[in-house]
Amino acid sequence: MLAKSFFLRLAATCIFLAGAAVAGAHDGRLRLTVEVEQGIPYYRLDFGDRCVLGKSRLGVALCNERGYVGDLVIASAESASCDETWQPVWGEVAQIRNHYNELLVRFLQPDSSRKLDVRFRLFDDGLGFRYEFPEQPTLHVFEMQEELTEFNLGHDYTAFCMPGDYDTSEFTYTTAPLSRLREEIPRQSAAHKSYEAKSAGDLVVQTPLMLKGANGLYVNIHEAALVDYAALELNVDDERFVLSANLMPDRNGSKGFLQAGCRSPWRTVVVSDDARDILASKLILNLNEPCAYADTSWIRPMKFAGVWWEYFIGIGRSWAYSDYSDAKPGVTDYARITPNGRHGATTDNVKRYIDFAAANGIDAVLVEGWNEGWEDWSAYTKNRHFLFDKAYPDFDVEELQHYAAERGVRIMMHHETAANAADYERQLENAFRFMADHGYNAVKTGYVGRIIPRSEYHGSQWMNNHYIHVVRRAADYGIMVNSHEAVRPTGLCRTYPNWIAQESARGTEFEAMGGNPADHTTILPFTRLMGGPMDYTPGIFQGDLSYYKEGFKHHEQAATTLARQLALYCTMYSPLQMVADLPENYARFDDAFQFIRDVAVDWDDSRYLEAEPGDYITVARRAKGTGNWFIGCTADENGHSSRLRLDFLDPGKIYVATVYADAPDAHYRSNPQAYVIRRGRVTRGSQLAIHAAPGGGYAVSIFEVSDPASLRGVKNLPTKIN
Amino acid sequence: MLAKSFFLRLAATCIFLAGAAVAGAHDGRLRLTVEVEQGIPYYRLDFGDRCVLGKSRLGVALCNERGYVGDLVIASAESASCDETWQPVWGEVAQIRNHYNELLVRFLQPDSSRKLDVRFRLFDDGLGFRYEFPEQPTLHVFEMQEELTEFNLGHDYTAFCMPGDYDTSEFTYTTAPLSRLREEIPRQSAAHKSYEAKSAGDLVVQTPLMLKGANGLYVNIHEAALVDYAALELNVDDERFVLSANLMPDRNGSKGFLQAGCRSPWRTVVVSDDARDILASKLILNLNEPCAYADTSWIRPMKFAGVWWEYFIGIGRSWAYSDYSDAKPGVTDYARITPNGRHGATTDNVKRYIDFAAANGIDAVLVEGWNEGWEDWSAYTKNRHFLFDKAYPDFDVEELQHYAAERGVRIMMHHETAANAADYERQLENAFRFMADHGYNAVKTGYVGRIIPRSEYHGSQWMNNHYIHVVRRAADYGIMVNSHEAVRPTGLCRTYPNWIAQESARGTEFEAMGGNPADHTTILPFTRLMGGPMDYTPGIFQGDLSYYKEGFKHHEQAATTLARQLALYCTMYSPLQMVADLPENYARFDDAFQFIRDVAVDWDDSRYLEAEPGDYITVARRAKGTGNWFIGCTADENGHSSRLRLDFLDPGKIYVATVYADAPDAHYRSNPQAYVIRRGRVTRGSQLAIHAAPGGGYAVSIFEVSDPASLRGVKNLPTKIN
Repeated sequence: MLAKSFFLRLAATCIFLAGAAVAGAHDGRLRLTVEVEQGIPYYRLDFGDRCVLGKSRLGVALCNERGYVGDLVIASAESASCDETWQPVWGEVAQIRNHYNELLVRFLQPDSSRKLDVRFRLFDDGLGFRYEFPEQPTLHVFEMQEELTEFNLGHDYTAFCMPGDYDTSEFTYTTAPLSRLREEIPRQSAAHKSYEAKSAGDLVVQTPLMLKGANGLYVNIHEAALVDYAALELNVDDERFVLSANLMPDRNGSKGFLQAGCRSPWRTVVVSDDARDILASKLILNLNEPCAYADTSWIRPMKFAGVWWEYFIGIGRSWAYSDYSDAKPGVTDYARITPNGRHGATTDNVKRYIDFAAANGIDAVLVEGWNEGWEDWSAYTKNRHFLFDKAYPDFDVEELQHYAAERGVRIMMHHETAANAADYERQLENAFRFMADHGYNAVKTGYVGRIIPRSEYHGSQWMNNHYIHVVRRAADYGIMVNSHEAVRPTGLCRTYPNWIAQESARGTEFEAMGGNPADHTTILPFTRLMGGPMDYTPGIFQGDLSYYKEGFKHHEQAATTLARQLALYCTMYSPLQMVADLPENYARFDDAFQFIRDVAVDWDDSRYLEAEPGDYITVARRAKGTGNWFIGCTADENGHSSRLRLDFLDPGKIYVATVYADAPDAHYRSNPQAYVIRRGRVTRGSQLAIHAAPGGGYAVSIFEVSDPASLRGVKNLPTKIN
Repeated sequence: MLAKSFFLRLAATCIFLAGAAVAGAHDGRLRLTVEVEQGIPYYRLDFGDRCVLGKSRLGVALCNERGYVGDLVIASAESASCDETWQPVWGEVAQIRNHYNELLVRFLQPDSSRKLDVRFRLFDDGLGFRYEFPEQPTLHVFEMQEELTEFNLGHDYTAFCMPGDYDTSEFTYTTAPLSRLREEIPRQSAAHKSYEAKSAGDLVVQTPLMLKGANGLYVNIHEAALVDYAALELNVDDERFVLSANLMPDRNGSKGFLQAGCRSPWRTVVVSDDARDILASKLILNLNEPCAYADTSWIRPMKFAGVWWEYFIGIGRSWAYSDYSDAKPGVTDYARITPNGRHGATTDNVKRYIDFAAANGIDAVLVEGWNEGWEDWSAYTKNRHFLFDKAYPDFDVEELQHYAAERGVRIMMHHETAANAADYERQLENAFRFMADHGYNAVKTGYVGRIIPRSEYHGSQWMNNHYIHVVRRAADYGIMVNSHEAVRPTGLCRTYPNWIAQESARGTEFEAMGGNPADHTTILPFTRLMGGPMDYTPGIFQGDLSYYKEGFKHHEQAATTLARQLALYCTMYSPLQMVADLPENYARFDDAFQFIRDVAVDWDDSRYLEAEPGDYITVARRAKGTGNWFIGCTADENGHSSRLRLDFLDPGKIYVATVYADAPDAHYRSNPQAYVIRRGRVTRGSQLAIHAAPGGGYAVSIFEVSDPASLRGVKNLPTKIN
């Protein structure tokens, strides 16, 4: 008892000290408290006089072990602080400040001598903390039963969330108070899931979870640096408004195998009373380890076109070379079977895209359906579905390699694994060597379906290690990775910047598969993008698929205006941006297409001008190494009126701005292709009133003018655009 | 009904024709009958006037499908025959005759139009048959529920068998009538299992299953060419004496995922009224596909010594470099932790073995414990246990590479995977490249423990593909594979001759871990070795482990005499033979060690002189490319008296024979190291009376004499040796 109370007093001192220290170093609004009550550790987070998280449990339960469920005391606490600036290989900004106060609390179970550390880092814009399992005589390897981590919100918040699922993040978002999720998730989200979904249970939600409080607070909960650990989802107590950890199990129910000396990922809570701060937060990147590579010169942001959208628009184009469903990759002699005549990845068609890319400054062309195995979709029931080093007979690898190289265009490899991660690893070296031998420097990977090894889910520990393994191995070959249907990102692109983008949410493809709500792109940056860039594949000019009369099958109308598609190149931050529509559609709207030609994919600076989750986002970004800015705004089904003041421009300089805005009568349902383009001079402090139509948006390019002669005939941009 | 009866009549005709054709081509003793009764196909196998297998069901049940459970008719039948001779890359004989009559029966489910073929091949010494699933409109990918294959023995046989298990074949054998297995398996086998055992259920036995009938018949049931399929075990009906297929599931219960166009492995039934014919049978090799490699010059049979037995004899030698159980391969800096001083794989110790090998014509030295990861045994609970390209600090890879090469010795790599096949595949390319870079041309792989991927067992479909993947990938690097704890072999070494040996049964190591019964080596060639060579690791001269006073822990006495250890180099056929004991023990018995120096590992001819499962085996083999013969005899606990007639020697030639036999008072328990050596001239027709002590055996080398002068002073070998 003496020791216990001693530790408590010591703890109280440390916490007080640490709390004070923390408060002193940042802008002072966030305050962390850590305490133990009846052997159970808790933390609490306050924002000024508002409580963000009330007394919230910490701890870990282990399988077949006593674990850290109770009887803990604080053995000691240490504080530290950091203020450093680092340069991302690519990013929204050129410099990132990593500024936090740290509190390391060492917990002890006195009668077992079992130790557990929790490291907290308090930033101006939020909190990160993780469990650290010190090496110790009574703990060696162990199996996680569950993290006991809680996020005690204490009152009802409006959540922007998806149902918890072990296999997919491809749901539409539910926007509803926590108290109504029980009814709203099935209505808003659950019906819009991808087919591999494996529910984590009722009232479980995924992270990143965006919350908006009646108290004016915006709170985002996620994790950083998901390495060798199960992904985090959250149970929702919709009466007490307490969230608690629900780690993704494997199919045997195991939530992770760990060894003393390891650490959990960081649990992150980004907080502000201004939604724009959530989007601007670099907290998750800061909590990841620095870049693991000495040389990153081979990693380059890029735009890419692709043999892709034509598979979705209902014109009967096929990934498969033939209709011979008994085909077996590596066994069947494809040269001897009858082609179906609808194959997309033919040498000629790919050349068409290469020509398009070369003519418009697009760096690369993705080609899907180039390799053996697309004749059926028997994922999970086949131990080998695709070959990654064997092209279909009508896709001439060498010829296209030379054709593309001569035009300065790269071909982006596609590795659809059918979620057979085991077989992908089996083929990985051959696949990457094949890529290196044929001039490929980027791959889009896919994990559609149920996972093989058949013990795993998309977010279980083994799979989380798999994704990183692929990315690291790709780096050995100078290859960038764009993973689709992988676990949602947690900022690991800082450590592995060749993990250039991920999908891991409902992207543009779903506009042709059930649709995305009009507010989808106003939520994604607050949720999915908190962990890293998304390959959202914007740029769909022809969103009404009934346009494709011939072979018409789909009735989908993408929930977007054409102008908003331009905006997404800014609002959906990614160093990898697809130019997703067909070349012929861009030819029809060549004036609007100019924005896509112009827009950058890497940035020195980013300013979130306006933001409200579920409603609108407006961001301005300065292109890497230039004085040119690009602005994008995306709005929900109600539209949005912006009043922008260009006070981020350099004083004394003159710029020419081009605004691509919805026409006054534009509407995402009835009139999506109506846009206006306005061009004129702007300077620092210029004001702009621009209206985004319902489901619409706008984009602005602002080029610094170095030669005043070029301004001849260019008038000032009108203040009111549309 | 018309069609059905038509098919039945056609079938009856074909079967009659095929049966007749089959009978005509071989020695006429085996007869196959195939018929359909009430929609269910059956086969029957007779040996002269003795029924081997009575009416035995054929068929396949599929998950979630009607499958082939009933309503089948015979649509057609085709017969063919083959008589060819092929040369194995290595083997017991230089030439193998592949001589069979074939009956292909095409079954049809008329109302579903579903097709199933069964291909039978009848050899002089047995039957092989497999299921073939033709490509067809109503069958694409499917999941196996169970094979319905039966082996209807019809009466009680004495079985030499192991309990069915999904994870291990490391049981002692049960010898008992089928009717008594229920009591005898728990008594004789189940207590002697390795720790990863996962029972397949009561009254399930493994194959190869050896049977001896009161009718004088010897029957061996196994499978050939286990590729992309679950391993076969057998349910025993101990009242009707019917065996039925029990395919190994994965942990989800799936018994295999298949695609139309595939085939099952061959189900093999080797039959004779002379037990020696079972051992001499090449039926299983013949049913495998020919060698898959164009160039096999790099594949070489060999003897090897190793840093190995010293880990088992209780002297405290350690695979691990340190006692630091929190060590993490690839993370921990081993150079900074304290060595335990008991590590076996040190540069100096390995040099000692290299010197020993070089001095005695031994090709290679295995080194276990050379790589990071041995500090604990947390298999299954770690996602990475070992690194395969990182040596411990006291194992100097480069220095040993040069030291061995200068002495003409190879080092054999060791890859203990801890049954983490997933991580092994992840590291495979690096591991093989590391080997190739450092002059290694052979690897001993190990799969101790529960399998990762955690959905798999050692014999489930995915793992069976894994083993082949490793072997094929090894071939790309010119590497031979000796797999331990893998699924038992099925003759795939014909197709992949760099799969130079396997363990897959209870080897010599168990003499120091609970013991092997004295008759163990009289059963293994009738069971485990039917599928391919075994790395049994013979050559233990010091079998009483109490000899190692210092640090003495074990009380084990190997159930063998010293002389029998020599015999095993002949009776346990393998192109890879370990010289397993410590160099210093061979120095103590240098005269006996001469046999190990002399004995070959590749053969032009083999003659099984005497054989009775569970009692004794005597074999003579002619060394590849020479006129020299080597004889080995192993006996059970009762010993065995041989009267050999050397009528396999060339007429007119003179030979010098050396007999290494148990001394008259030798006994495997009380006097195992008592042996006599007799040397003298022999010629074709010479007779020898040699006695194998209880648990003993003998070995004979017979060298052809080309220079008569060398015979001066050599007398005729006495007829009675001991």
